[in-house]
Amino acid sequence: MRGVARLAVHPLRQLGRCCSNACIMLKLGGSVITKKREPMTANLKAIKRLAREIATASVEQLIIVHGGGSFGHPLAKQYKIIEGYRDPAQIEGFSKTHQAMLELNKLVVNTLISHNIPAFSVSPSSCVVTKAGRIQTLYDGALTRLLATGFVPVLFGDAVLDSDKGFAVLSGDQLIAALAIMFKAEKIIMGVDVNGLYPADPTTNAQLDLLPHITLKDLKILLNNIEEAKVTDVTGGMLGKISELIPAISAGIKTFIVNASKEDTVYKALEGKKVVGTIIEKE
Amino acid sequence: MRGVARLAVHPLRQLGRCCSNACIMLKLGGSVITKKREPMTANLKAIKRLAREIATASVEQLIIVHGGGSFGHPLAKQYKIIEGYRDPAQIEGFSKTHQAMLELNKLVVNTLISHNIPAFSVSPSSCVVTKAGRIQTLYDGALTRLLATGFVPVLFGDAVLDSDKGFAVLSGDQLIAALAIMFKAEKIIMGVDVNGLYPADPTTNAQLDLLPHITLKDLKILLNNIEEAKVTDVTGGMLGKISELIPAISAGIKTFIVNASKEDTVYKALEGKKVVGTIIEKE
Repeated sequence: MRGVARLAVHPLRQLGRCCSNACIMLKLGGSVITKKREPMTANLKAIKRLAREIATASVEQLIIVHGGGSFGHPLAKQYKIIEGYRDPAQIEGFSKTHQAMLELNKLVVNTLISHNIPAFSVSPSSCVVTKAGRIQTLYDGALTRLLATGFVPVLFGDAVLDSDKGFAVLSGDQLIAALAIMFKAEKIIMGVDVNGLYPADPTTNAQLDLLPHITLKDLKILLNNIEEAKVTDVTGGMLGKISELIPAISAGIKTFIVNASKEDTVYKALEGKKVVGTIIEKE
Repeated sequence: MRGVARLAVHPLRQLGRCCSNACIMLKLGGSVITKKREPMTANLKAIKRLAREIATASVEQLIIVHGGGSFGHPLAKQYKIIEGYRDPAQIEGFSKTHQAMLELNKLVVNTLISHNIPAFSVSPSSCVVTKAGRIQTLYDGALTRLLATGFVPVLFGDAVLDSDKGFAVLSGDQLIAALAIMFKAEKIIMGVDVNGLYPADPTTNAQLDLLPHITLKDLKILLNNIEEAKVTDVTGGMLGKISELIPAISAGIKTFIVNASKEDTVYKALEGKKVVGTIIEKE
């Protein structure tokens, strides 16, 4: 907690409006679009609402990455995919994890299409290889053409092949940061199930004030404090997720953490309107 | 028909047994694994039987490519995907074609997994871009690692991005030939719904003798005759499909056309046992 006092906290400010053809990256958290405690169960109501919000917003170029929630995570955990390939029994689990993610992706893409969004499914495991869990190669041919043709590519956290450990889990967070850099994104909108970044876990302490604006330096201080204290992530895991975005933030891409479970938040964030959330930027 | 008399016809001979770690390519025709006249209807009985046959055969390295049948074809036709991007109304159809193919691919992959085959879905549209309908780039990173880890990649004919005409249809036939060359395949087994290549359409003339063995030269003569006569493909479309395999046959990869609708044919072809069919090879 000591590190938090050193944060520069700014008042809420307007999220940057799209003013060029630059791409906006939107993450739809697994905890928003699935029912976390019910295996392989989508939150269809939330997916439909988000599709409506995305359809209403005027965004020229958009890439969507969604998380796994109750689809990918239980299988990835059961078969210890994150530990790499150690046992032939994992082979089936690796494929099943991807199939589960394709199932969730199908629901997201089909809902977006039915709301007249030109969504197109892209499988990360078909175009990414990691090395020790970090993206080593990412084929941009199809994505570049999809964007040029006017599609909204829809990717997801996936079980992927790894050149060091056989296979790995590629989180939607690592993927969205890499894509943001690759396509020189204007901003990243991280749609999660809390209002933004808090100095501690908001689900266990309701009295906390949201951090409306932090810099990369602030973020690194928070992360260092966690590491030095050898404690679990007191922000409820949010800081760990956001640490994946550091390469994109370092490249100057503004990142907004907003509550995608709340009506109109994603719409407003896409439109560059005022919205409750945490802005993280380089300086 | 004149060209047929010039073909060198050999007696049936044993299909080459796998004697190295080289990869075998297996095409499962859309007319075998779907019910052609019923939109979006799989032939689950055939898919299960084929999964059993593949599981029983001892193949070290295998890549499977399946066709679209009643899943991809009606949508691709409805939205004129093959003509390229001409009208924004096609955008939805392009995505829907891919979603339909993913649906069929899911049934194939899940059935293979349930028969203990380490199948893994790979989306061609995520890792291929064509130029005027021909493969321009094909990302091999994930496929190479899948094979090295012991997986059976399962791809399919797909709606893909095209650098010339916006989008295109990538046939499973063009794809399997490119993959066969890329991975120096030992042989290609084309599982179709007829016994092999006939000198005319076997569905309208039951008295025809199968061509058990033809060379690349013979194949080219047949194709030239069709072109010169400006007639439709008298072999019932089979010759047009096989013409996609010429680059692989030219590279020395033996190709076997067999009837995947007949019990045990694919099993025997994978095992290198005697089977009714057409062998096409370079010389």
